[in-house]
Amino acid sequence: MTHWFCNGQAIDSLPIDDRAIHYGDGLFETIAIRNGEPRLWSLHIERLHSGCDRLGLDSPADESLRVEITAAMHAAQVDPSYALAKLIITAGSSTRGYRRPISVGSRVLTGVSEAQRPAADNYQAGVVAVRCTTTVSEQPTLAGLKTLNRLEQVLARNERSNTDAFEGLMCDADGRLICGTMSNVFVVHDQSVSTPALDRCGVAGVMRQHVLNTLKIAGHEITEKNVSWDHAMAADELFLTNSQFGLVPIQGIDEQRWRVGPVTGKVMKLLAQNGIEECS
Amino acid sequence: MTHWFCNGQAIDSLPIDDRAIHYGDGLFETIAIRNGEPRLWSLHIERLHSGCDRLGLDSPADESLRVEITAAMHAAQVDPSYALAKLIITAGSSTRGYRRPISVGSRVLTGVSEAQRPAADNYQAGVVAVRCTTTVSEQPTLAGLKTLNRLEQVLARNERSNTDAFEGLMCDADGRLICGTMSNVFVVHDQSVSTPALDRCGVAGVMRQHVLNTLKIAGHEITEKNVSWDHAMAADELFLTNSQFGLVPIQGIDEQRWRVGPVTGKVMKLLAQNGIEECS
Repeated sequence: MTHWFCNGQAIDSLPIDDRAIHYGDGLFETIAIRNGEPRLWSLHIERLHSGCDRLGLDSPADESLRVEITAAMHAAQVDPSYALAKLIITAGSSTRGYRRPISVGSRVLTGVSEAQRPAADNYQAGVVAVRCTTTVSEQPTLAGLKTLNRLEQVLARNERSNTDAFEGLMCDADGRLICGTMSNVFVVHDQSVSTPALDRCGVAGVMRQHVLNTLKIAGHEITEKNVSWDHAMAADELFLTNSQFGLVPIQGIDEQRWRVGPVTGKVMKLLAQNGIEECS
Repeated sequence: MTHWFCNGQAIDSLPIDDRAIHYGDGLFETIAIRNGEPRLWSLHIERLHSGCDRLGLDSPADESLRVEITAAMHAAQVDPSYALAKLIITAGSSTRGYRRPISVGSRVLTGVSEAQRPAADNYQAGVVAVRCTTTVSEQPTLAGLKTLNRLEQVLARNERSNTDAFEGLMCDADGRLICGTMSNVFVVHDQSVSTPALDRCGVAGVMRQHVLNTLKIAGHEITEKNVSWDHAMAADELFLTNSQFGLVPIQGIDEQRWRVGPVTGKVMKLLAQNGIEECS
């Protein structure tokens, strides 16, 4: 169960004229709380500010967001050692119509909940994914952002409601692999790591960014580029990243199977040394 | 001001776990109320049912929706002779995550408000439109539907927050004209009327459908097809349609100007005879 707060007050509902309801006019962040601290906080804040700028929304102050999360955890009595926080920034309330009012600021919603520690087997043996029929649409204006317009992910997620698959992989209309419904994907060919470029569509996850940063700092080559589905299926290794679970190897996509390879193991080790405890 | 109801009860907020807030998981209809009746009701219901089917949402019964609108108008003391109703169907409440719960039904929200009669000059002299920079993204799975994912329209609408233009016209990434931010568009070349095909993107408005039906019944040729921006700008006449205002001629797009032509006049006359009082 998620406990919600707005301006420090517990809430169980949102004003009916909020633009999140009518248009999905806003953004969100899903943040792992580990040992009382929001993990990868600066990456979350960076994406949130960049998103607010691109959508023309007022950007809330970093420090107030952090204070709000801590207060919410305390008020909801959520164990801060391993939890989850969701921040939603909406364009606020307005009268009917797509036009945003000039004077109304954004509204910040803070949700906190207990989090389950992921199964150790996901990290050791890897997870199984399937290819989704639902595609990701191309929209450079929104590409990379975690907006409240997430119907494509909902429909893609629902495709595997009857399977045990851990994740669904989504392509664009041209058959390029873009991301999972709730994760980003990396492919390894001949020891070199790459991840789909997200300048036309997709959500640029903070754990994806953390992997990019961590590998670059460690002196490893890593590239963002277009990855066709066939190229991905010909990879030596593949793995998924997400702010909550960190990194999990892929052991299967549809009927095809992979071993958990040495490069994935190396990246997991680097992440474990760089704040992602699940990878140790 | 819009007065909101759910299950016959006045509401001013939505449960914070409703999927409309988090993912835009739902649909809406904006319905003109004229002389106490919801106008083009069967077209609204048809689109709503088709949308619910395509998104996998429970479809509410037609009659209950109609009863709810009438009750809402009465409770809110909105003058039923000229008003506006908005129906929102959300995927309902759920716990965190894109996955829809199996057992939870959709939630119906009914909003009613006074409506302003449009300026007569819009119909006689026509309106001015501008081309938006924000494009409509291609997504066949959602094409034609009026989903709660409307960030593209919000951003496109905001582009002309400092202009007097009546509407913004949106193209897809390939420069095909698709629709206005809140309307559909028709072009006339050599007496023949066409409107952009909406099988890849865009919202298929009920007034657009009413124009298609009305012209076909009257024996006039009308086609749905791909319309490039250049082809549209080379039109002899252009007009916009929307459930509230009916039909208005376009007198200008950016720097280019048109006269209100005879074909547009003929279509307006047919609409006036077919229930759209604003066109008389």
